[in-house]
Amino acid sequence: MKIRKFSGIKYIDGGICAPKGFKAGGIQCGLAHKPLSEFKGNVPAENNKKKNDLALIVADVLCNTAAVYTQNKVKGAPIVITKKHLADGVAKAVIVNSVNANTCNADGEEKALRMCELVSEKLGIPVCDVAVASTGVIGQPLPIEPIEKGMAELVKSISYNGNDEALEAIMTTDTMKKEIAVEFELGGKTCHIGAMLKGSGMIHPNMATTLTFVTTDAAIKTEYLQRILSEVVKVTLNRVSVDGDMSTNDMVCVMASGLAENPEIGSENTDYEKFRNALYAVLVNLARMMARDGEGATKLVECVCSGAGSEMMAETVSKSVITSSLFKAMIFGEDANCGRILCAVGYADADFDISKVSVWIVSEAGKIAVCKNGIVLDFSEEEASEILAQEEITVLVDLGEGTHNAVAWGCDLTYDYVKINGDYRS
Amino acid sequence: MKIRKFSGIKYIDGGICAPKGFKAGGIQCGLAHKPLSEFKGNVPAENNKKKNDLALIVADVLCNTAAVYTQNKVKGAPIVITKKHLADGVAKAVIVNSVNANTCNADGEEKALRMCELVSEKLGIPVCDVAVASTGVIGQPLPIEPIEKGMAELVKSISYNGNDEALEAIMTTDTMKKEIAVEFELGGKTCHIGAMLKGSGMIHPNMATTLTFVTTDAAIKTEYLQRILSEVVKVTLNRVSVDGDMSTNDMVCVMASGLAENPEIGSENTDYEKFRNALYAVLVNLARMMARDGEGATKLVECVCSGAGSEMMAETVSKSVITSSLFKAMIFGEDANCGRILCAVGYADADFDISKVSVWIVSEAGKIAVCKNGIVLDFSEEEASEILAQEEITVLVDLGEGTHNAVAWGCDLTYDYVKINGDYRS
Repeated sequence: MKIRKFSGIKYIDGGICAPKGFKAGGIQCGLAHKPLSEFKGNVPAENNKKKNDLALIVADVLCNTAAVYTQNKVKGAPIVITKKHLADGVAKAVIVNSVNANTCNADGEEKALRMCELVSEKLGIPVCDVAVASTGVIGQPLPIEPIEKGMAELVKSISYNGNDEALEAIMTTDTMKKEIAVEFELGGKTCHIGAMLKGSGMIHPNMATTLTFVTTDAAIKTEYLQRILSEVVKVTLNRVSVDGDMSTNDMVCVMASGLAENPEIGSENTDYEKFRNALYAVLVNLARMMARDGEGATKLVECVCSGAGSEMMAETVSKSVITSSLFKAMIFGEDANCGRILCAVGYADADFDISKVSVWIVSEAGKIAVCKNGIVLDFSEEEASEILAQEEITVLVDLGEGTHNAVAWGCDLTYDYVKINGDYRS
Repeated sequence: MKIRKFSGIKYIDGGICAPKGFKAGGIQCGLAHKPLSEFKGNVPAENNKKKNDLALIVADVLCNTAAVYTQNKVKGAPIVITKKHLADGVAKAVIVNSVNANTCNADGEEKALRMCELVSEKLGIPVCDVAVASTGVIGQPLPIEPIEKGMAELVKSISYNGNDEALEAIMTTDTMKKEIAVEFELGGKTCHIGAMLKGSGMIHPNMATTLTFVTTDAAIKTEYLQRILSEVVKVTLNRVSVDGDMSTNDMVCVMASGLAENPEIGSENTDYEKFRNALYAVLVNLARMMARDGEGATKLVECVCSGAGSEMMAETVSKSVITSSLFKAMIFGEDANCGRILCAVGYADADFDISKVSVWIVSEAGKIAVCKNGIVLDFSEEEASEILAQEEITVLVDLGEGTHNAVAWGCDLTYDYVKINGDYRS
């Protein structure tokens, strides 16, 4: 997958450990109810090593911290605890497990809190400065013993280049590692943002999507960090849909150590804009990676809606296209059945004139007009097939109404999506 | 699939030809762009006969006629023409083709009108008394010549027991014939309603769903027929979702010949209620058949939401469950991953307290409680597997808020859905 480039922003290695002051690590503590080597998703990987299932991120200093959460009424117990702990706008560590979501369980909050307490005890930091997140199966009691037993090893595992081990620990059905880090400048100081993301199913727009952990060494007040995070998530992670299902445990958390020593951002000044652009570069790339790695996906699909009367209208239309099962299956089949695109545009809940709508399909292989003024054109099937044979497909929808735009990301619907989800637990 | 029974209503054979005064027929006129024997869906069937693609229904008398249509902004040309022709509340014939939807084409309305004219010329009835419907691929010009050439044969094909040939002609990816007829009494007279339905993909709640043609010999004023149709469709066909895609060509059309000679229904009297119940019996069974025959489906899924604060709330929750891709894949896998049900309940757009929600799964094999008060229970996996192994699965969701109920129908998400839709045209 190609990384989107932006001026003034340099991509670097290191993920969440790229910014100054962040250690991370991960271990395999044994949460799985079956051998992890058989776990769905291709993660296990190298040297027959079992997949990690427990991660820890620890900052050298207390960090200004912001977060956004799932909007599902069913909230994982870790969400409840983390919200409480981040209420004061600061945190120093995050513990995350995969395999079990610790959601819809009678003793969920107790155990989520226990995970924070374990970190607190081991590291000697206040329990309220520890955030917690979980991902995996819903509605099965979380076995706390493996986590208790693994704590010593987990704490020992953290280092300034432990991003990879931590990332492995948060993955479930992911088939590729999704992390990124950028370098940019604020007030003459070199700053960094690093991030890792987990998630390939139960992903839908209109929520704080998936598990995403972001670190930065930029100095920024929590209030502004929260504002930027909410703004950027709205146009990146919240515009991804894999399957229309909104998860119960999603969380995006950003910790800012301030160790880059830039003048602390405390107003909507130029540095605020620069930081926002850098966070956008990070999250837009993770959003694209998440869509590309959607459960069972073979292609990344981007729908750009232009010429809309409002940004909301553009967003509604672009999301309607990328969430259409028929459209997604057509992309998988590389079959230019373009009436389906118009169909999905037509049932989008927005007020526009369908007879002004035009559609193009674009990929590395070229660009082809498929609909004009609400009519499907007599395009070359051969040319369309060549365009659809690529791995990254963009659909351009112009509404001919106004000047607003929006982008949404999705993937194709494949046999493997059904396979992965027909039998996720066994 | 089992037929739902209702008191006072007897199921009979004959489909749309069961009521007095309706002839129907169907032929294979050659609309397909490839041999119909290779057409997706298992319809071709007996004796290597090619699937019909053109149907005609003709009433002996002018019928009071009501209809509901798709709410997609992209409307098939036949929808536009039929709306005009039914504006006066009467019709005498309906012509329907499959294979090509005649939608998003520059010359669509012209050709849809031409289809009505052909019927008008052949049968000597006013063109404004002919309705037209099409289903199939969107955005490919409709070849009118095969229809023109086939008209003589089509008209010759109609008879008082031609329901089967007509039904075959309207099917696309359907794998089973969906028709039903009932007998009931109004004012001492024996009345009938017959219906046939086509549709297995692009089916979603919140619209006039799919192609459905209903005939009745009951006497009823158009205004009351329309009122009953709209009411009944709302709680039957509009509560089915196969894939979340709202089609461009959906139509439900009811023609009432009045030949049963019952006192004409012209107020909301007892007969009005009786007729509504009979139409409900017809459409609820067709709704269940449609869900069961959803593209690629192997199971019928029903979600009954009870204890809701309003009917709207109950409908929103039950639809949220049956449209969840993760839930649908779980049903296919017969895997009791019940947190997914709570998850889909939790993201339904309605205001209720998730901690009061309970869930049961029911089938012929038994009933099992899987969630109570928002918590997943420690149920027997063995028992759950046995229940999920059946072909008809019911999920009961009780919100514990009030006294309102609603039912929605769907199906599982399977490899075959992807296969059918990844390559529908070729």
